[in-house]
Amino acid sequence: MKGSSARRAIISEGVKALSREGFAGVTIGRVAEASGLSKSGLFAHFRSRQALELALIDESTRLAWLHVIEPAMPAPAGIPRLRAVVDGWLGWSSRAGLPGGCPVASALFELDDVAGTARARIAELDGEWRALLLRLAGEAVTLGQMREDADLHQFIWELCGIYLAHHAFTRFHRDAGADQRASTALDLLFQRYAMPRRSRVARARQR
Amino acid sequence: MKGSSARRAIISEGVKALSREGFAGVTIGRVAEASGLSKSGLFAHFRSRQALELALIDESTRLAWLHVIEPAMPAPAGIPRLRAVVDGWLGWSSRAGLPGGCPVASALFELDDVAGTARARIAELDGEWRALLLRLAGEAVTLGQMREDADLHQFIWELCGIYLAHHAFTRFHRDAGADQRASTALDLLFQRYAMPRRSRVARARQR
Repeated sequence: MKGSSARRAIISEGVKALSREGFAGVTIGRVAEASGLSKSGLFAHFRSRQALELALIDESTRLAWLHVIEPAMPAPAGIPRLRAVVDGWLGWSSRAGLPGGCPVASALFELDDVAGTARARIAELDGEWRALLLRLAGEAVTLGQMREDADLHQFIWELCGIYLAHHAFTRFHRDAGADQRASTALDLLFQRYAMPRRSRVARARQR
Repeated sequence: MKGSSARRAIISEGVKALSREGFAGVTIGRVAEASGLSKSGLFAHFRSRQALELALIDESTRLAWLHVIEPAMPAPAGIPRLRAVVDGWLGWSSRAGLPGGCPVASALFELDDVAGTARARIAELDGEWRALLLRLAGEAVTLGQMREDADLHQFIWELCGIYLAHHAFTRFHRDAGADQRASTALDLLFQRYAMPRRSRVARARQR
């Protein structure tokens, strides 16, 4: 295998292993075998398990960008774009070809008691993701679509809960109703933060 | 060590390992070492890793019962008891002395792609837990405290999301504000399902 194609095979097999088995499954030996390389062949590309882990986190980020953010951006700014991002977030990992679910979601439970660069990078990424959601929600407030007095941090915290429940019910419980449950929960959460319609406000003032 | 005290040591150290590192961390070798036994000493009590795993799941259940259900049962039936159970559920694992969080929550992400008896037992337990929440919510409906037209399965699904978000923010992000976020989310969720007060209903009828 040429250098760049070997590297691509490592990343592609490694990110699948990460998705299926978490960081515990990303050993140099297993990823080398899955990529059709010897251990030393893999070491030529990644000098340590840590370096491999970071490359796989980067690849997960690239896939999430491609499958969640990119498709949602053409939606009109404000609630439509925010909702498109959130709808694309749920179940993104299957659409991205990751066979075992979202590597970040499972890392939140796998790496909660360890220190290290993988944990730090996941924490950073998850923070960036919530910052992006916050920015999109902020746009909806600016556009008068979401309440000005909304606690957007609370909104995003609850979004994270819906995401995690959807992940657990879809992937662990293999519950075919999880999409509908999540969609109902999202509708109600968005309603809670939506700016009441002008007409409704006007009517209230006339009382 | 006598038989029963050795068994207790294995269970006590094993459940800590499970809490900290998930099922990946529950190897015969590691648990034997933490319990001050040889591998063959451990095998005298548990003939397989599978048998050990099931015993540790049982121990987690016993601890959850002791730290979540028992303390909440004296609360009056209906919403007070349901809310007491839910409040006790959040963060129960720390109060039970488990150093690495809830073994069931992390198993929902660790064991989603494997088959086996541990996965099956966790799925069963999680189902029993949701059935208990459903029964408590049903009592609140019977007592006229929660809406008769409430979709209680949706209610419990959303409770699970709040639990998972609280776990991730407390344990992974070590966010001191997670208790408040969860409490706000629970208040709003309970409000959504609460029976409107008679007086409020009566007033609406007079309009």
